[in-house]
Amino acid sequence: MPRRNAPSSIIRRLPVYLRILDNLIKKDVEIISSRTLSSQTGFTAEQIRKDLAFFGAFGTRGTGYNAVYLREKLLKIIGLDKETNVIVVGAGDMGKAFGRYNITKNPYIRVVGMFDVNPEEIGKEVEDLIIEKLDKIPEVIKKYNVRVAILTVPAREAQSVVDQLINEGITAILNFAPTKINVPDTVHVHNTDLTIDLQSLIYYTSTEEKTLI
Amino acid sequence: MPRRNAPSSIIRRLPVYLRILDNLIKKDVEIISSRTLSSQTGFTAEQIRKDLAFFGAFGTRGTGYNAVYLREKLLKIIGLDKETNVIVVGAGDMGKAFGRYNITKNPYIRVVGMFDVNPEEIGKEVEDLIIEKLDKIPEVIKKYNVRVAILTVPAREAQSVVDQLINEGITAILNFAPTKINVPDTVHVHNTDLTIDLQSLIYYTSTEEKTLI
Repeated sequence: MPRRNAPSSIIRRLPVYLRILDNLIKKDVEIISSRTLSSQTGFTAEQIRKDLAFFGAFGTRGTGYNAVYLREKLLKIIGLDKETNVIVVGAGDMGKAFGRYNITKNPYIRVVGMFDVNPEEIGKEVEDLIIEKLDKIPEVIKKYNVRVAILTVPAREAQSVVDQLINEGITAILNFAPTKINVPDTVHVHNTDLTIDLQSLIYYTSTEEKTLI
Repeated sequence: MPRRNAPSSIIRRLPVYLRILDNLIKKDVEIISSRTLSSQTGFTAEQIRKDLAFFGAFGTRGTGYNAVYLREKLLKIIGLDKETNVIVVGAGDMGKAFGRYNITKNPYIRVVGMFDVNPEEIGKEVEDLIIEKLDKIPEVIKKYNVRVAILTVPAREAQSVVDQLINEGITAILNFAPTKINVPDTVHVHNTDLTIDLQSLIYYTSTEEKTLI
């Protein structure tokens, strides 16, 4: 059966389900209903059933899903059934936060390299990582078979770094650089722009007249 | 005329237009077309014209928008025409990154307080801020008339902190805590979950069969 890519809206929800399953399994919960998933995620039970059915997972009516089984299947679907190696390019505050991610946040993802252009940063340690020059990127990508990069460089450097990363085999980029980056169709980018997030929030706190006239 | 809230999809795009206008105005650009905005944002020119028309801003056909005028109007619509004070609750890596935000990123937003529960963090300086105990929050909110909070606390602490913040008058929350938080309808939350972002990206790098069967 050929691979069928799910809509990105579904893909975004799968890790949310995974996190809740992780927590429930830690509490020895064995069966989980779509209603429980709903109350913990805020998505409707119907949406959740549809999402899981997309991948062929059907709960038992009136009972629910086997938690351990569903978790394992989700890990496999997302691609987290084996540890995924990622690199961080840009060792500012945000980059360093990801460098410390290994030991704090996540059993499925491992940061295997951190890179910067600033000579003052190169050689510094961030947990078990040493910040290296950008020209070490190809070596690390090859050694750890890296396909995912977290990009936390300034806007003006973003595109040239991205071009280099793609050239070295990166196919997914979590982009924090506050700019649009151009990539071929084969590369997937998720833009996370914290300034935009914050500014658009401020709209909701304002009681000013919302018109240009 | 009563205030008309724009759809959140439009609100998310306004700060993107603003950033591009900022950059173009620095380069002395006076008139900007929806086509230029399109090429720099990746949104279609039609979408951009519709977004701006929602607020009553119409460019001149075949010419475009006056950049300075449009920027000023966008600032007013978003609520950035005067500096907005925000607080950061949770002084981990991510919280500290926002603490350094004042001098690095943004002319419109000012972090006026940073708070944590960890006694080892309290009293530490992050740029011009001193990390304070959570019980100092009401004082700072009152002093600086704060309505916006950035929440970077662990999941288990999130809801109780949120309840406190809302009680003190916070109406907009940028939530990095990896959990669903419950708020009344009058409070706006934007959830930014970097683990979810990263995990859902990994889906696209996997070539495994994407089915549960």
